[in-house]
Amino acid sequence: MESAVGIGILGAGVVGGSLVRRLTEDNDAIRAKTGLDLRIVRAAVRDLSKERDFSVPDGVLTDDPMAVIEDENVKLVVEVMGGLDPAGDLILAALEASKPVITANKELIAARGAELIAVADRNGVPFLFEAAVGGGIPIIRPLSETLAGEQIDTVMGIVNGTTNFILTRMAEDNQDFEQALKEAQQLGYAEADPTADVSGADAAAKAAILSSLAFGVWVGFESVFHEGIENLTLVDLKNAADLGYVVKLVAVAEKTPRGICTRVHPLMLPKEHPLAGIRGSTNAIFIKGPTIDELLFAGPGAGGAPTATAVLGDVIDAAREILAGAEVSPAIRFGSGEILDFAEIDTEWYLRIEVDDRPGVLAAIAHEFGANDVSIKSVWQDGEHGEATLLLITHRAAEWKQRAAVAAVGGLTSVRRVSTVMRVDSGTAGR
Amino acid sequence: MESAVGIGILGAGVVGGSLVRRLTEDNDAIRAKTGLDLRIVRAAVRDLSKERDFSVPDGVLTDDPMAVIEDENVKLVVEVMGGLDPAGDLILAALEASKPVITANKELIAARGAELIAVADRNGVPFLFEAAVGGGIPIIRPLSETLAGEQIDTVMGIVNGTTNFILTRMAEDNQDFEQALKEAQQLGYAEADPTADVSGADAAAKAAILSSLAFGVWVGFESVFHEGIENLTLVDLKNAADLGYVVKLVAVAEKTPRGICTRVHPLMLPKEHPLAGIRGSTNAIFIKGPTIDELLFAGPGAGGAPTATAVLGDVIDAAREILAGAEVSPAIRFGSGEILDFAEIDTEWYLRIEVDDRPGVLAAIAHEFGANDVSIKSVWQDGEHGEATLLLITHRAAEWKQRAAVAAVGGLTSVRRVSTVMRVDSGTAGR
Repeated sequence: MESAVGIGILGAGVVGGSLVRRLTEDNDAIRAKTGLDLRIVRAAVRDLSKERDFSVPDGVLTDDPMAVIEDENVKLVVEVMGGLDPAGDLILAALEASKPVITANKELIAARGAELIAVADRNGVPFLFEAAVGGGIPIIRPLSETLAGEQIDTVMGIVNGTTNFILTRMAEDNQDFEQALKEAQQLGYAEADPTADVSGADAAAKAAILSSLAFGVWVGFESVFHEGIENLTLVDLKNAADLGYVVKLVAVAEKTPRGICTRVHPLMLPKEHPLAGIRGSTNAIFIKGPTIDELLFAGPGAGGAPTATAVLGDVIDAAREILAGAEVSPAIRFGSGEILDFAEIDTEWYLRIEVDDRPGVLAAIAHEFGANDVSIKSVWQDGEHGEATLLLITHRAAEWKQRAAVAAVGGLTSVRRVSTVMRVDSGTAGR
Repeated sequence: MESAVGIGILGAGVVGGSLVRRLTEDNDAIRAKTGLDLRIVRAAVRDLSKERDFSVPDGVLTDDPMAVIEDENVKLVVEVMGGLDPAGDLILAALEASKPVITANKELIAARGAELIAVADRNGVPFLFEAAVGGGIPIIRPLSETLAGEQIDTVMGIVNGTTNFILTRMAEDNQDFEQALKEAQQLGYAEADPTADVSGADAAAKAAILSSLAFGVWVGFESVFHEGIENLTLVDLKNAADLGYVVKLVAVAEKTPRGICTRVHPLMLPKEHPLAGIRGSTNAIFIKGPTIDELLFAGPGAGGAPTATAVLGDVIDAAREILAGAEVSPAIRFGSGEILDFAEIDTEWYLRIEVDDRPGVLAAIAHEFGANDVSIKSVWQDGEHGEATLLLITHRAAEWKQRAAVAAVGGLTSVRRVSTVMRVDSGTAGR
């Protein structure tokens, strides 16, 4: 059996263009390996007059996305335009027309994933999004298929290449945040407006997806706490290194006895942690469970080519399902489960505090921590000319108590400012 | 839709027993997450009177494997008995009866995979073997599905936990091979007869499977060169470390312009290589290609529980296909392609040679290398009391030339013995 499958593509930017080139240039190789003849039937672009770095036959390009979805020769739809609108409604239309949909749109899935998956389920067609998390790293399929029967305790991931590039440059090459960000932009790792990356919002959307698939309970973007890397300084990365840690922006999805907690924030990882060695724009996902022990997946997290690889894998999978004529049901169904607010989770904190260099200051700070039920694990003081810097690491305590303690410390007259707070991985991943 | 699927199991040893416990104890959790009610209908064991660490209802256990396959309530068959016979013919019988088969049997797949896959294809049923390579690491599915459309240059893997445990103990804890092997046996990592592990044969079977899936050309076990770790000494591991390398038993599957070459042997990896940091019984697979760049998968490579996880993922997948009523075709089809003998590949060698400590010895050795068209990259000499040790690293040259040079050197009267040869990873993975 060798069969042609007509493909419609929505969007022909970096990922879409890369996909078009792969489907045309590698058509023979793909056919040899999979038996599938994947043909681009229609592709919707915003601006028909724009010059492209790929070529398609006349009549393939259109500026009307619905023309792609409604074309009777389009048997599956690939959405790589990004954003919530109109991508979401276009995907809905395709699924309602019983056409399989493949998307790389993490923002959309984190926002409307449960709804879209339900519509796909009702129409018996695949809705696949391997490219939404971890770029070229196969993680969605392993998580939702191979590990479907597995009890998972924790998923931790470095899922934003831009911020990992910046943090690597800062830690290894002594660049400050602004310098590293500028370099990331010059290299094309960071966008002109880097907010979604550096604020942790991009990683939070991916964390929502990972958490949903790992635990079989839908976790929306809105229930993911996120904090970015904008306020991290060279001093803090150096302090972390001196203490035996590496600072990473980490997405954590955790199943606790009280519920599922999902968050993104800078985290001080012990140097031996499997994610500590992930450098540059590489992404990695670390999965922990009682029988699976520890799994690590690492690879290129971003860029047109690796993302197109993940999309292409999904296209091949969906095309096989189409040819098999199967009524497809999703690998994972979402049940109910408690979502636990991050404030309820026990965390351990690193703090850098600028204080007046006079007697009694440490006692006053220690008092505020004690009053908020947080105990201090270690303190270093470094002072000159009347001002001193205190570095503290606390013992584990509920996040909300840590926050209250820090707020109280910030209000002390002898405290000039709390310059940095960072959470510390204490090896038990938040339990 | 929630549906029951009857499962038959062949073999109830370490992996089989672990699977039975998972299917019974986690039945509710699996049903909640996947919608599948997976029921063990029959399980074949060798000895019905043996005590088991799991319990199944009366009538489930049998000592007749065909009774499992022929039971009309058995909708899919799991083979975890291992070995070539009778496992191979039992799997054939199940596939011919149009029952999906899941197996963890790398030895059988490396020997008869092409035949079994063709029979599964002809009968339109899944034949899945995620557990055959890398234990609990999802690698077969990513390789054959997510990366099906991907051009892959090289797959390198640490795919035998026993030998990696032994090498880690030797390198980090100064144990010699015999001590480390004994400890591996005490911990249950190595079998009483460790030949298959330490000789590289187990890894070679896995290399054959990885190579076949990566390149879409069937590579049988018999075309995989393998060399074990039996002759490695503490001295060589220490020398490697001094030179900036870590010694691992590595399976390499490589696509060269002249053909596909697959082999297993000890390899000196630069300390920065992604596989160099894989310690103890952990397994890891590293994939390289022009668009995917570098992917790393790491996790528990052996043991009943992780292997049962991989089997369970396949069971869930096959059960979904059964319920979808699909005529299944395999993700990857095997085409024709050149298989390149390892002797034809360029390699770089490390040699430890015991020689008489007198003038002209190095010149004689250098002459033999030169006569065989192999050039020497670096030499260290360390001698006392008339005997000296030479350490050499050669430049890249065809493996057959390296072998010829070493044979010639071994024949020199001033050479007492060539104690160790090891291949060195020069960063280009054999191109």
